[in-house]
Order: sequence, then structure tokens, then C-alpha cells
Amino acid sequence: MASTTVISGTAARWNDLATRNQLVGFGDFTLRGAGQVMFQNNPVTGLLFLLGITWGAFAEHLPQVAIGAWLAVIVSSLTAVVLRLDKVSMRSGLYGYNGVLVGCAVPTFLHNDATMWVWVVIGSIASVIVMLAVTNVVEAWGVSALTFPFVLTSWFLLLSAYAFANTPVTGIGPAAFAQQASATAAQANWTISAVLEAIFAGVSQVFLINNAITGIIFVIALVASSSWAGGFALFGSAVALVFTQLVGANGSNVEAGLFAFSAVLTAIALGSVFYEPSWPVLIYTTFGVIFTVIVQAAMDMLLVPLGIPTLTAPFVFATWLFLLPKLDLTRSRRATVTTQAAS
Amino acid sequence: MASTTVISGTAARWNDLATRNQLVGFGDFTLRGAGQVMFQNNPVTGLLFLLGITWGAFAEHLPQVAIGAWLAVIVSSLTAVVLRLDKVSMRSGLYGYNGVLVGCAVPTFLHNDATMWVWVVIGSIASVIVMLAVTNVVEAWGVSALTFPFVLTSWFLLLSAYAFANTPVTGIGPAAFAQQASATAAQANWTISAVLEAIFAGVSQVFLINNAITGIIFVIALVASSSWAGGFALFGSAVALVFTQLVGANGSNVEAGLFAFSAVLTAIALGSVFYEPSWPVLIYTTFGVIFTVIVQAAMDMLLVPLGIPTLTAPFVFATWLFLLPKLDLTRSRRATVTTQAAS
Amino acid sequence: MASTTVISGTAARWNDLATRNQLVGFGDFTLRGAGQVMFQNNPVTGLLFLLGITWGAFAEHLPQVAIGAWLAVIVSSLTAVVLRLDKVSMRSGLYGYNGVLVGCAVPTFLHNDATMWVWVVIGSIASVIVMLAVTNVVEAWGVSALTFPFVLTSWFLLLSAYAFANTPVTGIGPAAFAQQASATAAQANWTISAVLEAIFAGVSQVFLINNAITGIIFVIALVASSSWAGGFALFGSAVALVFTQLVGANGSNVEAGLFAFSAVLTAIALGSVFYEPSWPVLIYTTFGVIFTVIVQAAMDMLLVPLGIPTLTAPFVFATWLFLLPKLDLTRSRRATVTTQAAS
Repeated sequence: MASTTVISGTAARWNDLATRNQLVGFGDFTLRGAGQVMFQNNPVTGLLFLLGITWGAFAEHLPQVAIGAWLAVIVSSLTAVVLRLDKVSMRSGLYGYNGVLVGCAVPTFLHNDATMWVWVVIGSIASVIVMLAVTNVVEAWGVSALTFPFVLTSWFLLLSAYAFANTPVTGIGPAAFAQQASATAAQANWTISAVLEAIFAGVSQVFLINNAITGIIFVIALVASSSWAGGFALFGSAVALVFTQLVGANGSNVEAGLFAFSAVLTAIALGSVFYEPSWPVLIYTTFGVIFTVIVQAAMDMLLVPLGIPTLTAPFVFATWLFLLPKLDLTRSRRATVTTQAAS
Repeated sequence: MASTTVISGTAARWNDLATRNQLVGFGDFTLRGAGQVMFQNNPVTGLLFLLGITWGAFAEHLPQVAIGAWLAVIVSSLTAVVLRLDKVSMRSGLYGYNGVLVGCAVPTFLHNDATMWVWVVIGSIASVIVMLAVTNVVEAWGVSALTFPFVLTSWFLLLSAYAFANTPVTGIGPAAFAQQASATAAQANWTISAVLEAIFAGVSQVFLINNAITGIIFVIALVASSSWAGGFALFGSAVALVFTQLVGANGSNVEAGLFAFSAVLTAIALGSVFYEPSWPVLIYTTFGVIFTVIVQAAMDMLLVPLGIPTLTAPFVFATWLFLLPKLDLTRSRRATVTTQAAS
Repeated sequence: MASTTVISGTAARWNDLATRNQLVGFGDFTLRGAGQVMFQNNPVTGLLFLLGITWGAFAEHLPQVAIGAWLAVIVSSLTAVVLRLDKVSMRSGLYGYNGVLVGCAVPTFLHNDATMWVWVVIGSIASVIVMLAVTNVVEAWGVSALTFPFVLTSWFLLLSAYAFANTPVTGIGPAAFAQQASATAAQANWTISAVLEAIFAGVSQVFLINNAITGIIFVIALVASSSWAGGFALFGSAVALVFTQLVGANGSNVEAGLFAFSAVLTAIALGSVFYEPSWPVLIYTTFGVIFTVIVQAAMDMLLVPLGIPTLTAPFVFATWLFLLPKLDLTRSRRATVTTQAAS
């Protein structure tokens, strides 16, 4: 109780400072931008996400991914300031969450030289414009843009990189035809620690990091804002793991969390953001997570001949399909201001 | 006259029974779900469709396609009941027609083992959710979802199957680059019986069956509900046959009705459902059918590198493009309750 | 001043004649259809566009491209008359600009024999129906169809051509996997005359012509209607040239204007049509042009495995993304009647 009071006192002082001091205010909504990747309008969550990315990027010997994330979220926030966008949405971090993902994705898949950084900056700026465009399109149906602006912007950046000599693609490809998965490749050695590592790697892959410690930091970051969000993140990753093993997915991809990151986001979105947790919602979310894993696998096959990754598109498409029916499952939308639904 | 009176008396008693008895009511709208694949809100049509599928599936030594169709239409209808969806739409069969098609498509293209049946059940449930989602999106423009929920759900299921060892794809693929069709492959031996077989096969392929007798059963099923629908089905198939022969399509694909099934659906939709039959409508429908065949060929080429079939997507896209202009061709929409336009 | 008076006097007499004489009226809006490809509701601009196409087509020894353009714009206009479409839109040329592009594209990419001309006629008619459909979809968001009806119709026509023996594809393909561009291929010998030729070729490629003189005629045609439009066309082509050289695009494709034509259209649209020229608009337009070049390169890679060209899709998608945010940059939309926004 005492510690809760201390925390809420600190939070109140921080919010007060962010309102009065423009630089603190900028830092505040930039961090909230990172937090909004998993729907959390919370600067502490955002800061922990960025620290988790930094840890994982250095552990993978890809420091450029950490630098990209920090640079991109700042450039995106600056773009929103320069374009004088809606203040409420800006302060909720809604113009930063696509940028931070662009900043993780571009250095993960392109060779680390000068033009790559131009791509990061162009992508961060463009992600804000695409966010406005996508929001204006989908708000007619009462759904939010989710991470589709990140996906669309990054697909353009990564596909175009094949056409230019100064932006070699190194983290994926080359393009090939999809092949039927073999039973041999599906085998994995599931010790308890391997299962836990895979579950947390699934969470860390939301930011394109394959690192269980980063996954643990992310879950702590979520719990700092919402215990339900943290719980559903782990639930989504676990359901994806079990389902993919039952149907014979590639074992090393399962271990790397590559079937789970979209499922994690769907689980948070359906289970804790757009519906209030309840038994019917849990059943609906579980089915939504399984459907997300099928869409993930389908889009992996779809993009193999193009040599680009799905990014979080499977989460976006599956979650849209499960929100658009507007089913009444003791449902109550949160105030749009504090989620990605605002515009 | 006497027999018409008998039929309408029987129909009245059936409808009365379906309202009073929940099990009969469930059977009634499940059969109507099968009928709605070709826009007929009629349980007799639906029953004949399912019998035609059963005949053709056994004739092709693919009994799993028949079982899939029956299972899927029941699971879809049950899903609608469990989700407590709109009663009027439910009783018109609007939550069953995508499911029955999923139940035909999955066993046609995946190897017949345990996980395939899991795919059928997941697909049948998902088809209802996707139906609600697609309807909510497209009703803004005054068009109905057509069979797009089936197409989208099945594309996800079939593409994802390549990624899993337990769901081998056998009925299509492997992925390849599209090649220019050759004049040699375009040759076919068009006796009168071959022409008739191809026309009826085009109708039977609406449910992914290649069997002229099934096609005849389907036409009888249509006539039981609407003579115009039966006539336009044959007209669409015949126009597709003539056009594809003129431009040099692959002869054995033409014989198998693979250029005709989308044309059949476009012809029924434009000629008898969304417009009242008339001379201007006939001309517009004929052009729409030719355009559908072009879209069919285009999408065949589009999907060859992915190793998945077009399903009825060419019908959906072409019919949307021809309905969206909302041209006044002595046009009168039917009541939305009795067609797929309801939601 | 004197010559301006003469010109406006002639224009007034022409408009008067076009209202009274049905044949002159038909010629008037057919020419305006050609002009609307670059947003100019002006018969002189349209006539000069058609003459520029004719010059370039004969210079490339592809007279069928010129014949296709003239034939298609007439067939499209006739289709609008037969369908009794909205008179104001018709007289502004809004039912002709997609057709004229279909008439350039089909003869550029298909072998010149009888069936190719059937494709041109089907495509010209279909482009009007697709124009109505696309307009009805996108007007909900306050944007116009741009050249998407042309793109969609032509993609169907060109992809389907692979499936038919009588419509061999010759101008593009065969399908292949995208490869990383090499530094060697990026080299080009940029003399001043080569730079100028490439800039004007970029303008001429809007109508799929690779000819600097055609490009000069097109710029003159634009200036006859709007100096800003002419200036932004050259600006867009120049920015595309500089950007693609900096990032290492294929040199001979840059020389042929293949990275510039979509950029030219984006520059005209953002810089002079949907916004009033100003410094903030110039900055926004420049970023939009760079983004268009990235989308152009991305879509080139996307379509390599399908063996079809991007056409003006990169312009359409980038311009939609930059218009949908509805940013206030001292912006004022022109009256919808005189631009492609009308319906």
C-alpha cells in the first residue's frame, strides 16, 4: 500500500512536470510512444521496453537495433510536433509506436551503413503520415490502426532495398518458393527451461529481439502498467507454442519465438484492451490467438517469394477480423484517448 | 397448379414446424446456409446442393469432401447459435454458406488425416467471425460479403498448411512461376457431350466438385428456388466456355470447369439476384461474366507462385466491381433479408 | 495580353460549340479525358498529350501504342455516353483518363495481334465501370480514384494474358525472383544532355513512352493548362533522378525514366492540385516524391515474381497515403468538378 502511494505520488509529480516543462513533456510522450506498441499509455512501460530492446540488441551484437529504436521514436515524436498534430493523441504516444518498430526493423534486416540510417529516418517520418492515413481509413469501422502503419511503411522500405545497391538486405531472404514443412524440422528438445525461453522469446520478438531476458523485462514493463496485459502476453506466447508444436511447425522457429509475437499482441489486444477480461473473453481470445498463429504461418509462406518478413501484420489482420464483428462478450471499450484507437 | 399447391402447402407446414421445433429450425437454417452459396434462401435447394456434393465427392473417391461439407455447415450454424447472432440473418442461412465451402475446400487440398479435420472445424468457426467482420466493412458501400469470408479464411488455412508438417498440401502446388499458355495445351476435342459435360462441370465446381451429374443436380436445386438462377448459372458457364476457347485457354482446365465456376456465380448474382432480368441487365451480365473469366485467369497466374487456388475470389472481386457503380439498369434489389446482403 | 485575349476568345467559342454540337462536345470531353491523366481538365492539354503519345509511339516503332491510346479514349467516352453517366463528370473527362492509359499499356506489353485489340476494347469499357466502383469506395474518405481504375483493370488484363495462348506477353517478364541490385548496374554516365533526357523521359513514361521529345510535348501541354503543373512535373522527375542515383538504383532504368513517372504524378497532385503551392507544401511534396520513389522500387520488386509492371500504382498508393491525413498546409482543395475527385 505504502509503495503504491509512493508510486502514484511520483507519477503525479512526473505528469505535472511533463505538463509544465516542454522538454520533459517531449520525453514523456516519446516514452509513451514506445509503450503503445503493446497498448500501454505509460512512460515507465515505454522506458523499460527501450531498455529491454537495448539489452537484447547488444546481446545479439546488433547495437544498431537499439540505436535505431531510440532514434526512430524521437524522430517520430518530433515529426508529430512539427506537423502540429492533435495534442491529446500526441501525449498518449500514438505517433511514436509505429516509429519505434520501424527503428527496430530496418537495422535488423538491412546492412548497417550510411544509407540504412537514411531509411530509418525516412521511415520514422513516414510512419507518422501513414499512421494518420490508416487511422482516417479504419476509424469508419470503429477499429484502430494497430501496428499496420509500421508494417506498411517497413514493407515499402525493405522491399525497395532490394532495388538499390546502397541498401543491401542481409537479415532475411533471398526470395524462394515456399516448401512443405518436414516432420524432421518440426522436432525440438522441450526441456522446461527451453519452454520458458521460447515463451519469453515470443514476447521479446514483438520488438524483433530474440532474447528471453528481454522478454522478461517486457513482461515486467507490462505489469508496471497492467497485470492483465502482462498475463495475456505470456498466455498468448504459451498458446502459440503449444499449438505450433501440435501441428508440426519448424522447431527452431518456434524456439526463436517467430510464431508467437503476433499471438502475444492479439492476446493483449483481445484479452485486456478491447474487451474486459472474463470467461467468454478468454475463450474468444484463445481462439483468436490460434487463428493469429495460422495467419502468421500463412503470411510467412506468402512473403517467402518476396524475401521480406511478416512483421506484425498477422496480429493486425487477425485482430481486425476479431474486433470488426463487434460481438458483445460483456465487452467495454476503454476510452479511446488512452489506446491506439484515438486519432 | 395442383402440384404447386401441394408444394407450397408442404413449404408452409415445414416453415411452421421450423419455427416451433428448435431442432427442425436448426436443420432448416443449416440447409438454407448451403443454399445461400448460390444466393438461394431455400432449404430444398440447400439439401440438393449437399446431395450433389455427396454424389460428386464419392464419384471422385474423395468422400472426405462430402463429410467436410456436412460437418462444416453444421459447425458454422452451431457457431452462430453459440454467439447468439442476429436471428433473421441466421434463419436465412447467412452464417452457413461460407462454412460449407470451407468444408469442401480444405479436404480437397489437404491430405486426409486428423489435423485436416481440426482445420475444417477451426475454419468453419472462423468463417462465421470473418463473415461478420467482412459484412461490417463492406455494408458501408451497400454491397454484401458474397463468398469473400470463405475465400479469406481458406487462403489462411491452406497457405499456413505449407508451414506445418502435420497438414501436408496435396491437391495443389507446388509453387512455381506462371508460364505463358501454349497453343498446344489450348486444344480440346469439343463433341456435343464434351461441351455439355464442361458446362455442367463449371456449375459443379462452385463447390469444388468436377462432375457433370453434380452440376445437373445443382441446376435442378437452383430451379427449385428460382428458374432465373438456374438459367443464369448455365448461361454463365456457357459464356465462360466459349470465351476461354476463343482466347486459347488450357483445354483440360476448361473441360474441368475451372474457368467457369466464378462466372456461374457472377451470372446468378448480376443476372437474377441484384438486378431484375431484362435486356440491359443481360448485356451487363454478359460483360460481367467475360470480365470475371479474365479475373479468374489473372488470379490463377497471381497464385501459382504461392501454390494456393483462387477459390471464388474472381467472382467476389468482379461482382463487387460491377455492383459498386450502382448503375440503374431497371434495377431493383431484392429484400436484403433473403440474400447474402443481410447482416 | 493580345494573344491571351485571342486564346480565351477561342476557348470561349470552342466551349460554346461543344455545348451546342454533340459531336464537338464528344470530342471535347474525350480530349479532356486524356488531359485528366495529369489532372488537367483542358482539351488542348489532352490533344497535346495524344500527339506526344503518337510521336513517341512511332519513334519507338510501336504505332499500336498510339492507335491504342486514341481508340481507348474514344471507347471509354462512348461507354460513359451509353451508360448515361453523370454529365458534369463526363464533360470534365473523368471517364476517359483511365481508358487512355489502358490503351497505352495493353499494346506496350502484349503481342500485337487480333486478340490484343479485343483486350484494349474490353479494358476501355471495364475501366469506366471500375472507375465508378473505385470512386464509390474511396469517396467515403474524401479522396479521388486517381489512376487506380487503370491500374486494377490493366493488372487483370496483363496477368490473365499469361493464361491464354492468343494473348502472348512480350513487353515484360518472364516472372523471376527479385535480386539485390548491384553497384555495377547502378553506374550511369551523367552528361548534362543525359540528365535532361532522363528528366523528360520520366515525364513521358506517365503514358508508358520512353522519349524525351514526348516528355517536352507533355510539359508544354501541362503549361498550356497550369504552369505550376508543368513545373511540378519536372521537379518530381528531377527529385526522383537525384534520389535514385544517391541510393544506387539501376542506371539504365533511371535513364529510361522508370523510377520517375509515379514521382511526376505525385508531384503534380500534391504540389499543384490538392494543395495550393507554398513553402510547406513544397517540403511535403518533396518528401512525398521521395516516398513515391521508395514505393516504386518496392512495387517493382513485388511484381517481378508475377511478370507484370507496377503501372502508376506507386503514385496512387503514395498519394493516397499523403492526402488521407488531411493535413492543413495552407491547403485548399480545388472544386471537385474540375479534378478526378468528382464522381
